[in-house]
Amino acid sequence: MDRKRAGSRYIYRFGHAQAEGDGSMGEELGGKGASLAEMTRLGLPVPAGFTISTRACRFYLEQGAMPPSLEEELESALGWLELEQAQRLGGERDPLLLSVRSGASISMPGMMDTILNVGINDTNIDGLAVKQNVTFALDSYRRLLQMFGSVVLQIPKHAFDQASEGVSRDGEEASLRQTILSFQQLIEHRSGKPFPMDPRAQLRQAVVAVFESWNNDRARHYRRIHRTPENGGTAVTVQAMVFGNYGVNSGTGVGFTRNPSTGEKAMFAEFLANAQGEDIVAGIRTPMPIAELERTMPRVYRKLRTVTSRLEAHYRDVQDFEFTVQNGELFLLQTRAAKRSALAKLRSAVEMAEEGLISRTEALLRVTPSDLEEVLSPQLDFGNVELQPIAKGLPASPGSAVGQVALTADRAVELAGKHKQSPIILVRQETNADDIHGMDAAVGFLTAHGGATSHAAVVARGMGKCCITGAGGIVTDEVAGEVRIGEHTLKEGDWLSLDGSTGRVFPGQLTLRPSESFDNPFLTKLLYWARACSLTAVWANADTPQDAERASHASAMGIGLCRTEHMFFAKDRLAHIRSMILASSPAARERALASLLPVQQADFEELFRTMPGLPVTIRLIDPPLHEFLPTEVAAREELAQARLQGTDVENIQRLEELLLRVQQLSESNPMMGLRGCRLGIVHPEIIVMQVRAILRAALRVKAEGILALPEIMVPLVACVEEVRFLRKLIDATAANLFAEEDLFGQEGRRIGYRVGVMIEVPRAAACADEIAREVDFMSFGTNDLTQLTFGFSRDDAHKYLDTYLELGILKHNPFVTIDREGVGSLIRSAVRKAREANPDIKIGICGEHGGDPASIAFFAELGVDYVSCSPARLPMAQLSAAHTSIARAPVKSQQEKVPHGLRLVEGASLSHDLPSQIPSVFRSSSPSAGPTSLA
Amino acid sequence: MDRKRAGSRYIYRFGHAQAEGDGSMGEELGGKGASLAEMTRLGLPVPAGFTISTRACRFYLEQGAMPPSLEEELESALGWLELEQAQRLGGERDPLLLSVRSGASISMPGMMDTILNVGINDTNIDGLAVKQNVTFALDSYRRLLQMFGSVVLQIPKHAFDQASEGVSRDGEEASLRQTILSFQQLIEHRSGKPFPMDPRAQLRQAVVAVFESWNNDRARHYRRIHRTPENGGTAVTVQAMVFGNYGVNSGTGVGFTRNPSTGEKAMFAEFLANAQGEDIVAGIRTPMPIAELERTMPRVYRKLRTVTSRLEAHYRDVQDFEFTVQNGELFLLQTRAAKRSALAKLRSAVEMAEEGLISRTEALLRVTPSDLEEVLSPQLDFGNVELQPIAKGLPASPGSAVGQVALTADRAVELAGKHKQSPIILVRQETNADDIHGMDAAVGFLTAHGGATSHAAVVARGMGKCCITGAGGIVTDEVAGEVRIGEHTLKEGDWLSLDGSTGRVFPGQLTLRPSESFDNPFLTKLLYWARACSLTAVWANADTPQDAERASHASAMGIGLCRTEHMFFAKDRLAHIRSMILASSPAARERALASLLPVQQADFEELFRTMPGLPVTIRLIDPPLHEFLPTEVAAREELAQARLQGTDVENIQRLEELLLRVQQLSESNPMMGLRGCRLGIVHPEIIVMQVRAILRAALRVKAEGILALPEIMVPLVACVEEVRFLRKLIDATAANLFAEEDLFGQEGRRIGYRVGVMIEVPRAAACADEIAREVDFMSFGTNDLTQLTFGFSRDDAHKYLDTYLELGILKHNPFVTIDREGVGSLIRSAVRKAREANPDIKIGICGEHGGDPASIAFFAELGVDYVSCSPARLPMAQLSAAHTSIARAPVKSQQEKVPHGLRLVEGASLSHDLPSQIPSVFRSSSPSAGPTSLA
Repeated sequence: MDRKRAGSRYIYRFGHAQAEGDGSMGEELGGKGASLAEMTRLGLPVPAGFTISTRACRFYLEQGAMPPSLEEELESALGWLELEQAQRLGGERDPLLLSVRSGASISMPGMMDTILNVGINDTNIDGLAVKQNVTFALDSYRRLLQMFGSVVLQIPKHAFDQASEGVSRDGEEASLRQTILSFQQLIEHRSGKPFPMDPRAQLRQAVVAVFESWNNDRARHYRRIHRTPENGGTAVTVQAMVFGNYGVNSGTGVGFTRNPSTGEKAMFAEFLANAQGEDIVAGIRTPMPIAELERTMPRVYRKLRTVTSRLEAHYRDVQDFEFTVQNGELFLLQTRAAKRSALAKLRSAVEMAEEGLISRTEALLRVTPSDLEEVLSPQLDFGNVELQPIAKGLPASPGSAVGQVALTADRAVELAGKHKQSPIILVRQETNADDIHGMDAAVGFLTAHGGATSHAAVVARGMGKCCITGAGGIVTDEVAGEVRIGEHTLKEGDWLSLDGSTGRVFPGQLTLRPSESFDNPFLTKLLYWARACSLTAVWANADTPQDAERASHASAMGIGLCRTEHMFFAKDRLAHIRSMILASSPAARERALASLLPVQQADFEELFRTMPGLPVTIRLIDPPLHEFLPTEVAAREELAQARLQGTDVENIQRLEELLLRVQQLSESNPMMGLRGCRLGIVHPEIIVMQVRAILRAALRVKAEGILALPEIMVPLVACVEEVRFLRKLIDATAANLFAEEDLFGQEGRRIGYRVGVMIEVPRAAACADEIAREVDFMSFGTNDLTQLTFGFSRDDAHKYLDTYLELGILKHNPFVTIDREGVGSLIRSAVRKAREANPDIKIGICGEHGGDPASIAFFAELGVDYVSCSPARLPMAQLSAAHTSIARAPVKSQQEKVPHGLRLVEGASLSHDLPSQIPSVFRSSSPSAGPTSLA
Repeated sequence: MDRKRAGSRYIYRFGHAQAEGDGSMGEELGGKGASLAEMTRLGLPVPAGFTISTRACRFYLEQGAMPPSLEEELESALGWLELEQAQRLGGERDPLLLSVRSGASISMPGMMDTILNVGINDTNIDGLAVKQNVTFALDSYRRLLQMFGSVVLQIPKHAFDQASEGVSRDGEEASLRQTILSFQQLIEHRSGKPFPMDPRAQLRQAVVAVFESWNNDRARHYRRIHRTPENGGTAVTVQAMVFGNYGVNSGTGVGFTRNPSTGEKAMFAEFLANAQGEDIVAGIRTPMPIAELERTMPRVYRKLRTVTSRLEAHYRDVQDFEFTVQNGELFLLQTRAAKRSALAKLRSAVEMAEEGLISRTEALLRVTPSDLEEVLSPQLDFGNVELQPIAKGLPASPGSAVGQVALTADRAVELAGKHKQSPIILVRQETNADDIHGMDAAVGFLTAHGGATSHAAVVARGMGKCCITGAGGIVTDEVAGEVRIGEHTLKEGDWLSLDGSTGRVFPGQLTLRPSESFDNPFLTKLLYWARACSLTAVWANADTPQDAERASHASAMGIGLCRTEHMFFAKDRLAHIRSMILASSPAARERALASLLPVQQADFEELFRTMPGLPVTIRLIDPPLHEFLPTEVAAREELAQARLQGTDVENIQRLEELLLRVQQLSESNPMMGLRGCRLGIVHPEIIVMQVRAILRAALRVKAEGILALPEIMVPLVACVEEVRFLRKLIDATAANLFAEEDLFGQEGRRIGYRVGVMIEVPRAAACADEIAREVDFMSFGTNDLTQLTFGFSRDDAHKYLDTYLELGILKHNPFVTIDREGVGSLIRSAVRKAREANPDIKIGICGEHGGDPASIAFFAELGVDYVSCSPARLPMAQLSAAHTSIARAPVKSQQEKVPHGLRLVEGASLSHDLPSQIPSVFRSSSPSAGPTSLA
């Protein structure tokens, strides 16, 4: 290995507009070394120096000794630097002083950092004083001793603090001299050797210390946590010192080319006069705003603006830079891509694309879906205080919420007030469909039971509200109006704060930093670009006209899932559906259904009006009928009450009947019970009502000049025969309706509709080819498919999922990120079989996974036409879909890397450029290409 | 079409030991015609005649006219018959009389049958009288007129009865003459034409009538019900008459070559002297036992014995024959395979194989699994009364039961008495694990809810008891000790009768025809042959030593599923498992487990002793923990009671804790909750206890000289990581145990064990290859796999499965017969992938389907090593496995068809002949080839 490497160099020099390395050599030179070489090449003012490559470090760590040729290279580099700087290392007058800094290819805080002023010793301290003044020289020596002692020799910092405390305060110079002496004694005492007076020995020891710091505990720990390779090694950059502490014309600063909090295009920097970088870091003195520099050193300020603008233009990204002004001369010491807030990422990406600095594709790739999530969710503002949570649960729906406790849905509505003027946190053991009105009234939910996909979690994400589920140690007492959370007892009306991003619960009313709205112009622009370049369309799940409104506002390309039964849960409707269930004769059932029809129709009309010309997928009734009835406990109680109190025989009889029906409909495993298309096969009259409501609504809005594109979806299909049966029923119902309305002669007045299925049952996925031949579209309901493929009940799985994730038995929660191996492979083969059997079929995803970036990437790879998610997740999903589409066109994105490049990915042009790649969903949703089923 | 057929004949003659047709020509000649031709060829006494083929019928039905060449063939055949019989059709003295009978290729009761005495008319009636006597001649004419009128002309029978009623009773001859006249008038009046005096016209009209009867309503109806092809057509056999009514030396009879009820090898026949066949059918006179014939006509009797023995030997099956004796001369008129009881099928098949008449393979194929089921189940004896059931449910477990009603498990135990001396019917809304002791005490179960795979049904089939589930209209009132069944109210102790084969419930104590036991020697022999020729081994599911005893008695080749938790449900054990669940500290839990260990170990020891040298598959704990606790309602009630009554604070606290734990453990969908291997991953200490109990039990019996082959099965696996985790835990536990017992130096004293998984979750089937690499065996739990693949909850599916079966959406109940397309295709691909990944893996089936013949055939096709079923289903499963193995070796079974053939399929020789085909299960269960995991 040595021989192989023997020919290549270990040291790369930079200085005076020339450099042996460049910005692409991060692996060899570390991030810092590479950026210094690059800046030097750009002709920017950088103190000259050289970088010892990571190869040397690796050699040292493997062999336990420096590479033999390094000594020679180092001498040669030092000689070059002395010549460049016209100074001599260890020279008695104006000696060359060096900084020694570590720098791995990725920034690694666990490693040793910097030693300044290498080169000073007892013999040249006076010569240094001549150059500037005595105080400066002595202070520089003190700093060297302290840094060398703590960083190279690993003497604890507090030992130096103690040593300097004992020093008498009789005059600055005397005091400094005494400090130097006591530091030298400390070093000799602690390390067993005197401080090395030979500057080359100082340098060599510093380099070795940097190399060895690669393997110190902190660095190992850091790499383990961040899963960084163990064998990279660090580079060492040795650079001529520049001094910000030469006096009032000197100083040091750090800054960003744009505001790292807001992204605003304005240099954001701080400056400390007559100081070195470590003084800013130590926080002893408060830096001034950069405007101060503009006032005191306008020339330097202007140069800084020019230089950093060039840096940003060169790197095509917001830069985080460090600089030093030495006697009015500007030097840059470091530049790197700036860490910034999600909001700043969004704004700077969009603005840089608009400035032409980066392409739109790059802008899209610079913002992650979780950035958008952060931008769109309110966050608790802790200030600088570390608060202790009183409970911790699953972060089931992101964002935060602060509000007053309510323990029942009714109380939530009451406490919220008519106009929801009071923010309410609904706290429940767990929620169910009966709580919907209370959830609507609340700003956040906290439950004792349930996982990331429990009822509360699903509803919260759908509503875009904060939710924490499965928070152990919560016991609610609705009667007393109290809840015990750990050791705290809260009453209804007390304040509570939820951090939905971490699952932490805090008592009291914390401050809430509000979220950005959908109206943020940068968000709007980015998402417009995202939609334009996506090969996978993003639709929304919307159960109510209000949901659809939100979806439309966020530019959903269609409704992928409207759960009709959610329309039934409203109190005025529940009565009808209950009488339908309790009907003792078919005629009575028909009557109940007849009164439901206009209600559903009105809802559908609203949906269609919100989504003109876009497909609206309406799922036929899905949940078990007993979900519409009270629980057995509630029914029993009501009956007991009635018996105790009254003599109203008729009422008691009614309640007895209700209880009986509740018992009859109760199921051991309702998830796999009488629901979905099974319900429609056992009670076809419900389907007839729903299909009539859908088509009558479509006819009605058509009369208003609005094009409705209804897509009727059959849920929970397991066998192709179910599909055949229900398709026949749907088509017959449509034909009857059109006949009644006498539309057969009036081509233009009829309504086209599509019929499809929801694939949620493993058997349906296995028979996807057979089913595909019977339908116009299929949509994977990945929630239920995951439940059944794993045999994990969403509502109960939290009892073991935590353990599974801890033990690494599962890498991800499969209800959050699609399980590629199991559920994913079922979907993959189903998509393939379905497309083979029916090339015209439209395929979508409408489970919770439709809003998860990693899952969207997977679905997009499978080539589905659309993913559908809750309206609140639309921005994240649209961005994810764009990312995946970009990743799938590597050649194009390669071209994109040309700086100031072509604005290749403008939406409109893309969809014209790539007609063969445009998913069929674009075609299908266009009004001119009508749906296929025209009864 | 005419031209094509022109060359081939329509008529086939037979008579005097020669025949143009033979027994293989059933399609052409009908069953009757073919058997007459075959008997004639055998030289048996058959009246001469000829058969008009079904082709002629098909021509007639298609063209509406007889084939042109038929007339000529008919004349020629008649001429031949006149010559053979030395009589002339329509001759004035001793005329040739004919019988005309229909006969399709399969027996079809809906068609017209027989017209006798064709050929008599007004002019030859006196000539006929000369041959025998006047009364005989007149009676024969009367019969012809009546049959011709009713069968050919379709005049209702009662019209003839009315016509004969009006006849005066003044002397037999005069009366007959008057009857003939009135029948002739009736015919002319009803048909508009006089009775045809031309015998050829009689014959032709009869033939046409037979042809046309193929399409009458009854025949069509019959074919629709029995799914018989519509286009077969019927043949017509025309035969010289022989008369059983010639006097005391004449007669007619029917019989079987062996007893059709018991199968005993003894001719079973009845005889009626001086009578024609129709007299026996009409039931006017009571036939005598055949012994009477032996007494009165010993020569004829001996000839009949000889002839029918030849028939049985020739057809190699029990025959159902008809004969006529005319003046001491025996004629055979029909022979066919006899319909017989299941018991007779079993006995005759075994005895015929032992006699060398058929091969053992044939014997096996002649008995169906449902025959065995019938033989092994008691049946209600209705006598001749038609009883009305008071309720009807699903026939969930076959057999019948008569017993006294008990409404709770405790009452069942109480009413049954210490030695279960009183038969009890347990009637419940539905059963659960708490009812096990009551189910054990009862002889049959009746539930209001649940389907064919509900708890009651599964337990019943496991126990081999009768069970009816989902019987609507049953309301139990345990407190009052009353149950309403429809309009009847029964008290505990009242008698009830269940017909488990049809699902009907009868009030009162009906008679029960007892079942054959396993000790039936013919059953024992048949099943021995079955096991010997099976390529798929049959194992048993056995949860208790008692089950294992039964399995061993029925020659199970191993235990495929021991559900350890069933051992916990016994009252003395439940306390321990409850304290384990309620344990507040790990130490307390360990203590509870420590007290469970010896109990489990003792059970396992018994299992191993019952199955020496055979694999015993022990499934680790599977059900949700809450199944071991009382229901929430019960816990609430107990707590309420305690609060009301006592001041025992400690007890109340205990009950409060219990209720809390019950609530914590309650799940929305327990089937997919914290159970199976998830339980073992969350609570590894349970697995450690169970593995120690298993291996300590094996060590213990080994010390007694008994070889135990424990196979440890991990249930409800979904991911390979679960398997890796638990295998590591199991192996470590084993290693620890062996170390503790200091067995590492003592090779001989250690215990081999296998580790495998139960594949019940679709995801596990999809990843079967990965999982196969980690285990020694896998067993498909088809119940849960069906649940999850369909998304059908076993306990709830009855609510829609009935509708699905009615509508034809499903062809079979997938919980009874494996769904080949969906679940089956998952299993098929899993088996293939598993074998590819691990060629040594042993694969089995241990769901309910392991006892279903159609499913066994499917599993055997897939090449699984074994199927495991409840002990009660072993005989049926063993026979099914044999059938499938025979079907899979078509060449061999072809050879088997040689009469008196080689006894090819003797078990021992088969397994030596086909070493490559012997499933690995034979190898694995042999003690010499030890299990693979030797920790």
